[in-house]
Amino acid sequence: MAHHMSERSGVATISLSLDEIGALANRVFSQNGCDEANTQALTRTVVTAERDGSLSHGLFRIPGYVASLRSGKVNGKARPVVTHKTPVVVSVYGENGYAPLAIERGVPVLADAAKKMGVAVMAMTHSHHFAALWPETEAIAAHGLIGMACVCYMPFVAPHGGRKPIFGTNPISFAWPRPGKTPMVIDMATAAMAQGEVQIAAREGLQVPLGTGLDSRGELTTNPNEILSGVLLPFGGYKGSAIALMVELLAAGAVGERFSFEAAEADNKDGGPPRGGEFMLAIEPKLLAGPDWAEHCEKFFRRFEALEGARLPGSRRHKNRPAGGKRDINADLVARIRALCQ
Amino acid sequence: MAHHMSERSGVATISLSLDEIGALANRVFSQNGCDEANTQALTRTVVTAERDGSLSHGLFRIPGYVASLRSGKVNGKARPVVTHKTPVVVSVYGENGYAPLAIERGVPVLADAAKKMGVAVMAMTHSHHFAALWPETEAIAAHGLIGMACVCYMPFVAPHGGRKPIFGTNPISFAWPRPGKTPMVIDMATAAMAQGEVQIAAREGLQVPLGTGLDSRGELTTNPNEILSGVLLPFGGYKGSAIALMVELLAAGAVGERFSFEAAEADNKDGGPPRGGEFMLAIEPKLLAGPDWAEHCEKFFRRFEALEGARLPGSRRHKNRPAGGKRDINADLVARIRALCQ
Repeated sequence: MAHHMSERSGVATISLSLDEIGALANRVFSQNGCDEANTQALTRTVVTAERDGSLSHGLFRIPGYVASLRSGKVNGKARPVVTHKTPVVVSVYGENGYAPLAIERGVPVLADAAKKMGVAVMAMTHSHHFAALWPETEAIAAHGLIGMACVCYMPFVAPHGGRKPIFGTNPISFAWPRPGKTPMVIDMATAAMAQGEVQIAAREGLQVPLGTGLDSRGELTTNPNEILSGVLLPFGGYKGSAIALMVELLAAGAVGERFSFEAAEADNKDGGPPRGGEFMLAIEPKLLAGPDWAEHCEKFFRRFEALEGARLPGSRRHKNRPAGGKRDINADLVARIRALCQ
Repeated sequence: MAHHMSERSGVATISLSLDEIGALANRVFSQNGCDEANTQALTRTVVTAERDGSLSHGLFRIPGYVASLRSGKVNGKARPVVTHKTPVVVSVYGENGYAPLAIERGVPVLADAAKKMGVAVMAMTHSHHFAALWPETEAIAAHGLIGMACVCYMPFVAPHGGRKPIFGTNPISFAWPRPGKTPMVIDMATAAMAQGEVQIAAREGLQVPLGTGLDSRGELTTNPNEILSGVLLPFGGYKGSAIALMVELLAAGAVGERFSFEAAEADNKDGGPPRGGEFMLAIEPKLLAGPDWAEHCEKFFRRFEALEGARLPGSRRHKNRPAGGKRDINADLVARIRALCQ
């Protein structure tokens, strides 16, 4: 997608291998206040995003990550604390660090609980989430479990019928394990478009589809810059708005962390992500559906994959994955990241 | 909505009180093979639908209910069996009856597990679901718990990009408890329009919005009859299609019951609902978010309700509820139901 956009808009790119991307990320995090554990978790997050072509969640995020490390809003040396509130409720206190390390520490505990009991939830607080959600739901699926995750953010999205923001772009991810195969992974903003995608469209001088958002006067516009100073809309009208509401309630209300409007009020506006929560759910299909669950589900997947024109969510991203070659990265972005290495 | 449609299309209606609706439902179910427990559970489902103006899930469904009782596909004397597979996995075997009695027996067990442990799931099998989902998620919310429910059906909906059906209209419901208040309740088909709504539009001679579905040649149409012989589309493009897929996987794959395509292949096509499963989730917010969870969430709800143009899901239905007066019911439908009383 980066390549495609670049070709259309003629933006200069630099070719980097995944190792080179990892080395760059490692350097910038370790030189901006992160300890070894946080540096490695953040680097893994950036590299897997670039590996899968998940452009808006990789290197693109680094200036924001660094801004909040430098302002002191985010703790680069956070030691996440994982506890059981009940045998199936896992609590992760993020100590105001970035989410990746807290997720890496919490998911195995969540997965153990779900494997034993059939279902478990994880409530993450005091953490700063600035990446995609599929790394955590894919990690749950790698344990053979159904995974779901939700976060909210800052109010950028108006509910259906409204013109003022209250929701974050509120992504939801859902992963379905397929033993011996790549899992089926949904990861989508409940906004008509993720804010990172709107920012990239603005940077590359592209228009966005009508219905993506409203300008500051509350009128529909295709100009991404006008939407960034106005408001995004949920996908899919009132039904998408209901899903955005569900995500907001799970990620903040169920977890006991800030709603998007509270996060914005408390944030220091340094350009990095506000403090927030994350809701995660893991389900052991074997304990609900019995030992033949996977074989049964593959019947469905085979039928789905035979449908002309249809595509399983996540399959485009997973197709990018085996391409071990270099990635074309926006040259300005690389220069900015290098300048952040002291 | 019945009234509104009737006014526009000039369809004759009969005024019935909720007691009269209940008496009619009770008579038709008990005279068509239901025992007392199933008759009462089905009657409650019909009456609460009509009470809330949930037109497509009340009396409208009775001819279908009766068709499957008469064909022998559905067991009117089913005794649902509720068991614990683990302390947080509740299994309900429906004995091929209609869902309402199985739900009424299962939900208290699910709620007890969630209250003790923080989260629990319910996997319902061998049941025939032909109603809305909000009765069960509202019942979960009445226990002070967050509730979610999913069912699939028969393939009427093409995935985004496809032209052949694989999903049911695949509703999802999500209820949020608000102590001392009516809960917030989402209940929506993941199809652009519920099949019952398309059928009602066809009956009343109305058009449906473009994007609701494709005709039998795979072309967009606003004619509900053409869609009924063609295919529905998911709401919200590829994102809504992903939610429809999630519902299909939870309601069938996670539960160990028939996918929509399997349900259609096994069904006797008597006009009533096929055998299927239901997935339910209940979460105790107190055990995740702590004792102040409700007060925290009300801050969010107050802010939401203050937004000009925005409306909480379920609020229109809940507004219909206190109106204790008579309901205007399609006269032909009442005549057909009366004729089904032997």
